[in-house]
Amino acid sequence: MSEQNLLDNISCPKDLKALKMSELDDLATQIRTKLINTVSQTGGHLSSNLGTVELTIALHRVFKSPYDHILWDVGHQCYTHKLLTGRCEDFDTLRCKDGISGYPSPCESEHDFFRTGHSGTALSSALGIVRAKSLKRDNSYVIAVVGDGSSTNGMVYEALNNADRNDGRLILILNENEMSISKNVGSMARYLTALRTNPRYYRFKAKTESALNRIPLIGKHLSAFISHLKASLKKTIYKSTWFEDLGFNYIGPIDGHNIEHLTQALTSAKLIRRPVFLHVKTVKGKGYDLAEQAPTEFHGVSKYDLNSGDPIISGSSYSQETGEFLCELAGKDKRICAITAAMSVGTGLSCFQEEFPERFFDVGIAESHAVTFSAGLAKLNMVPVFAVYSSFLQRTYDQIFHDVALQKLKVVFAIDRAGFVGEDGETHQGIYEVAFLNTIPDITIYSPSAYAELKRDMHKAIYSEKFATAVRYPRGAELGLPSDFVSENRNFDIYPKEGENEKLPLIITYGRVFSQAVKAREKLLNQGLDTKILKLNKIKPIDPAALEYALGKEEIFFFEEGVKSGGVGEKFANLLLENAFKGQYKLFAVDDVFVKQATVEEQLKEYKLDADGIYRALLGGTDEADEEEA
Amino acid sequence: MSEQNLLDNISCPKDLKALKMSELDDLATQIRTKLINTVSQTGGHLSSNLGTVELTIALHRVFKSPYDHILWDVGHQCYTHKLLTGRCEDFDTLRCKDGISGYPSPCESEHDFFRTGHSGTALSSALGIVRAKSLKRDNSYVIAVVGDGSSTNGMVYEALNNADRNDGRLILILNENEMSISKNVGSMARYLTALRTNPRYYRFKAKTESALNRIPLIGKHLSAFISHLKASLKKTIYKSTWFEDLGFNYIGPIDGHNIEHLTQALTSAKLIRRPVFLHVKTVKGKGYDLAEQAPTEFHGVSKYDLNSGDPIISGSSYSQETGEFLCELAGKDKRICAITAAMSVGTGLSCFQEEFPERFFDVGIAESHAVTFSAGLAKLNMVPVFAVYSSFLQRTYDQIFHDVALQKLKVVFAIDRAGFVGEDGETHQGIYEVAFLNTIPDITIYSPSAYAELKRDMHKAIYSEKFATAVRYPRGAELGLPSDFVSENRNFDIYPKEGENEKLPLIITYGRVFSQAVKAREKLLNQGLDTKILKLNKIKPIDPAALEYALGKEEIFFFEEGVKSGGVGEKFANLLLENAFKGQYKLFAVDDVFVKQATVEEQLKEYKLDADGIYRALLGGTDEADEEEA
Repeated sequence: MSEQNLLDNISCPKDLKALKMSELDDLATQIRTKLINTVSQTGGHLSSNLGTVELTIALHRVFKSPYDHILWDVGHQCYTHKLLTGRCEDFDTLRCKDGISGYPSPCESEHDFFRTGHSGTALSSALGIVRAKSLKRDNSYVIAVVGDGSSTNGMVYEALNNADRNDGRLILILNENEMSISKNVGSMARYLTALRTNPRYYRFKAKTESALNRIPLIGKHLSAFISHLKASLKKTIYKSTWFEDLGFNYIGPIDGHNIEHLTQALTSAKLIRRPVFLHVKTVKGKGYDLAEQAPTEFHGVSKYDLNSGDPIISGSSYSQETGEFLCELAGKDKRICAITAAMSVGTGLSCFQEEFPERFFDVGIAESHAVTFSAGLAKLNMVPVFAVYSSFLQRTYDQIFHDVALQKLKVVFAIDRAGFVGEDGETHQGIYEVAFLNTIPDITIYSPSAYAELKRDMHKAIYSEKFATAVRYPRGAELGLPSDFVSENRNFDIYPKEGENEKLPLIITYGRVFSQAVKAREKLLNQGLDTKILKLNKIKPIDPAALEYALGKEEIFFFEEGVKSGGVGEKFANLLLENAFKGQYKLFAVDDVFVKQATVEEQLKEYKLDADGIYRALLGGTDEADEEEA
Repeated sequence: MSEQNLLDNISCPKDLKALKMSELDDLATQIRTKLINTVSQTGGHLSSNLGTVELTIALHRVFKSPYDHILWDVGHQCYTHKLLTGRCEDFDTLRCKDGISGYPSPCESEHDFFRTGHSGTALSSALGIVRAKSLKRDNSYVIAVVGDGSSTNGMVYEALNNADRNDGRLILILNENEMSISKNVGSMARYLTALRTNPRYYRFKAKTESALNRIPLIGKHLSAFISHLKASLKKTIYKSTWFEDLGFNYIGPIDGHNIEHLTQALTSAKLIRRPVFLHVKTVKGKGYDLAEQAPTEFHGVSKYDLNSGDPIISGSSYSQETGEFLCELAGKDKRICAITAAMSVGTGLSCFQEEFPERFFDVGIAESHAVTFSAGLAKLNMVPVFAVYSSFLQRTYDQIFHDVALQKLKVVFAIDRAGFVGEDGETHQGIYEVAFLNTIPDITIYSPSAYAELKRDMHKAIYSEKFATAVRYPRGAELGLPSDFVSENRNFDIYPKEGENEKLPLIITYGRVFSQAVKAREKLLNQGLDTKILKLNKIKPIDPAALEYALGKEEIFFFEEGVKSGGVGEKFANLLLENAFKGQYKLFAVDDVFVKQATVEEQLKEYKLDADGIYRALLGGTDEADEEEA
C-alpha cells in the first residue's frame, strides 16, 4: 500500500467515511508526516495539530460537515481538519500570502464555519448557533472543540453557565493535553486531573450506547431511557462532576489517540438529548519525538530543521531583550513582578520565571484577570509588568480602563507583537492597540525603534512614569538605527540632527517604520530630495515640542504601522489643524481593514510602509505621481 | 434611646466595635432608615444596599479597616460601609457634584481601597493585593464581597482558577440574593441553590472555631488542627463543593441578616489557613417592603416618593422607545432576537422578554459571552440586537473585533447610556465607546438626536446595513428637534436647511448635543451672528458628502459629547487636513480625563457642550474672547 494513497485520495469527508476502520491509523500517520514536513517549511502550529489528528478523523467520520458545524476554539489545531476537507493539495501554501490560512477561514471553505484565533470563544458562538438552529427547527449538531488551555479563560465559563439542558445538539469536546500554550495553570487543571477516576466506566457506557444506536429509531428512545436509568446508579458510585451540576452530560476521559474509542464516544454523544461534555486526553506533539519532548517550543514555530528541530533563523528578538532586561532590573529591585497569560516563552519571560519564581505569575489564558490582578499588585506599590501580545491585549480594554487607569495605578504593559505579525493573519495583528489605548485617559505609550530604546523606555516606564505605561515593540529583531543617529533622550528625535531647514519635507513616524524611513530618505537623497524625520518615542501623550517642530514645516508625511482610525496620525492632524497649520499633510496607515496573512515584509509593502512605499509617497507629494514609476 | 444616637455617634469602625452586640439590630434599623430617606432624595442603589447592612456591620466588627482591606465588587452595595467609616454626616450629598460617591472612592476615604463600578473585578484585584502582601510579609486580610450576579461573570472564574491554597489571608464572600441586577441566570445560580444542603453543620463549625479563637495563640494552632481532623469527617457526610475542589474552604450558607451568625462565621474565616469561600444569603431590598417586593425596580433608582415608591420624574426614555420599537419589529420579523447582560429593565427590554421569550436571552453579567453568542445567532441569519450600556460595552472590545466585525456578521448593538450618565460618575460614563469602536474595521455607528431618528436608524441597522452596526443614544429622554428641522433621511443633516452661505461659521455635532447647538444658534442670532449646523447621523464611516460640505467653510467648530482622543472630531480634522482645508478648526470634546459625578446638565456645562458653552465657543472663535463675559 502506497503511503501517500490514503490522504491524497480524500477530497471531502465523504471520502474519509469510505475508508475502513483498519486503515485509519495509517491515515493518521500520513497526516502527521504531512504536518511535520509542511510546518518545517512554512512555520506554524505543530504540537497542537499533532495532538488532534485522531480526534479530527473521528469527528469527520461521525458527523456530517458542513451540515453539522465543527467549531475550533483558538483555531490553531485545525490543520488535520483542513487536510480532510479539500485543502490537502494546496497545503504547502499554509500561512503564505494568498495561501491556506493557519486558522479556520470561512472564505476558504464551507467546512470552516467560524474564524477563530483568540481563546475561549468557541462555546459562546456554538451556543448562539445552537439556539438559532432550535428557533429554525434545524436538527444538525454543533461541536465545539476546546483545549484545556482555553478552559482557563472566563468566556468559557460564561458560556458554560448559559448552556441549557435543552441544548441537545451541542457537544463540547474538552481536549486535555495538560498544556496550554505554555503550561496549564490553576485550579481547573487540578480539577480535571482529579476527574480521571474510573475511565472504564465511561468506556463501557460509550460502548453500550453505541451498540444501542445501531437499532434505528426505537434504539434512540431506548438509549435515552437506559441512560436515564443508569444515571441514578452512577450517582451512587461516582460523584457527579461540576460539569454535570451545570447541566452537561459528562463522558470521559477518552484516549484521544484511539480512533475507535473516540468514534464510540462521539456516537454516544449524538444520542444524548442533553448537551454533552466530552473529555478527551491527547498528547501535544504526538508522533514527533522532538515536539512531544518540548511541546511549548513546538507550539508555534518558524521554519525549522526536521532532524534537529532547530529553527532555520535565530538570533535575538525584542521579546528576549525584554525578558533579559526585566531580569536585570528585578535582581536589583524587589518590587518588580512579571505577569503573563500563558505566554512565558513567547514573551521572553522564561528566564524571569526561573530566576524569580515568587514574583512571576502565569495566570493561564486569562488576560482580563491578568490586568486586574496586576492592578492589585500595583495598589501595594509593587511594579507589575504584564507582558502580552498586542492582539490579546484587546481582551482587556475595560480592565485597563476600570482597574488600572481610573485607579491611577502604575501597571507596566510590555506589549509584544505590536504592528504587523505576518503569517498568523487577521486575528493576530498588533495594529489596533495604539488606537484603543489612545482612548483611555492617563496612559503613556512608548514605541521604541531599537533594543537600546526598548531598555531606555522600559526603564522610564518603571522609574519615571507615575501611572499606567505601555512599551510596545514588534515581533522579531531590531532593524537597527543609522550610525549617525544621535539620541537626545527626549520624547522624540529629529534625524538627521544637525541643520535646520524649514523648507524640507518632514516624515513623522514611530517604532519599526523609522528604519524604513531612514532607507527611504537615502533613496530620496539620491534623487536630490532631502527630508527630515521626526521620530516619536513617546506616542501618548504627544510632546508639545514635537508638535511645535512640525508646525514649522510645509509638507508633512505621517507613516504609521497601525490602524489609521484613532491612531497617532489622526490625533497629530487634529493638533496641527487646531494650531492653524496651513501646510500639506498626508497620513499613511492601515485604513479600516483587517490585514491578511503574508510575511511582515509583504505587509509593510502592501500598506506602503516599507522604504519603497515611503519613497514613493514623498515623490507623489512633490507632484511627481506614481505614474513615473510605471 | 434616641433613634439617631447610635449611627450619628459612629465616625469610624472603632466606634462601631464599642457597641454591644444587643445594640446592633437597632443600628441596622437606623442605617436602613438613613438609606431609604437619602436615596429617595438623591437617587441611587437601594435594593443592594438594604441587603448588605448586617454583613457590613459584621465585617467592620471582625476586621480592622483600613489595615485589612475590604473590596466591594461592583461597588453599589457600599453605602453602609460609607456610613460606618466617617461619611454619615455628608451622606445627603450622595451622588451630587463634589459630594459622596455612590461607589467606593479611594480619594474620598482610606477605607475605600479600590474604586469599583463594573462587575466581577474584586476577586482579581484581591488576589493581586494578597500576593503583594505575601511578598511584603504583611499579615492583614483581604475580603472581597461579591454578589451572586457577579458570579456569572467570567473574570470571577478566572480569578477563582488562580487562587492558591496558600492565600490564607483571602476571604471571598459570595452574597447570594438570588438576584443580579435583573434576575440571576444560568447554571451557577442553580448550583448555588443546590448547595443549600445542611446549614446547621456549617453553623456548628463556625461556632466551634469561634470559641477556639478566644484562646490566643495556642487556640489558632488547635483550631487549624481540628479543622483538619473534621475535614475527613465532613467529606464522608457532605460531598465537597466545587469551590473546595478549587482550593477554597467553603463556609455557608449563613443568614446574611443575622449579625451574630455573620460575626461567628467571619471570625472562623480569619482562623482558616486557606482561602475561604463564605456563602452568605441576603434579601435584596431587606426592610423596605416596596423594594423587597420589586428589587429590580429599586436596584438603581431616581428620586422617588417614600410611600408610593413612585419616581418623582417619569415619562418616556430612549431605553423604553428602543424596547417598544424592537417589539414592534420582532412581531413582524421572526429573525429578530434581543440579548441583554442582566439589564433587561434598564435597557427597556422587559416588554420584549414578555412578548418573545423564545427570542430573548439574558445571559447574566457576561457581556463578552453576550457578544460572541450574538455572533453565533447572526451566523445563522438571525438578527441579534444586543442592548447594553455604553460603559459595559467596554468589556467586549475583543469580542466585537474578533467574533463580529472580523466575521462580517450583522450584530446590532443598541448602546444605551451613551454620553454623560450623570450621578454614577467615572466608572459609568458612556463617552468612550465611539472612540474605541472607531478603531474596529467595518462597524457602522449611528447617533440619533431624537426618538424618531432612533427608530429610523434602528430600522436601517436591521434592514439596510450589511455588517455590525451600532445605534447609540443617551440616558433619559429626547430633547426634541426644532420645529423647522427638515430631515432628508441622509447620513447627515444641515440645519437650517435652506440657503447657502459659505461665510457662515459651521457647527458640527451629533447626538444629544445637536439640541444644545440649536439653542446656542438662537442665542448667537440674537447677537447678530448666524451659523449653520451640520448634524452627523451616521458617525462611522463619515459620509464624504458631509466632509465636502465642511470643506467649503472657513470656520468650523466641532462639539463632541465623548472623549476627544480617537473620537469623531479628530478623525474629521484629519480628513479636512488631508483634503487641503485651510480654514479654522476647533474641537470641543472631553480631553483625556475621567468625568466625575454630577448631573448630566452639570457635566455638559463643565465640558462646554451645553448651549451656553457652544455660544461662548463661537464668540471666542470670532476673536471676541471669553474675557468679554467676565
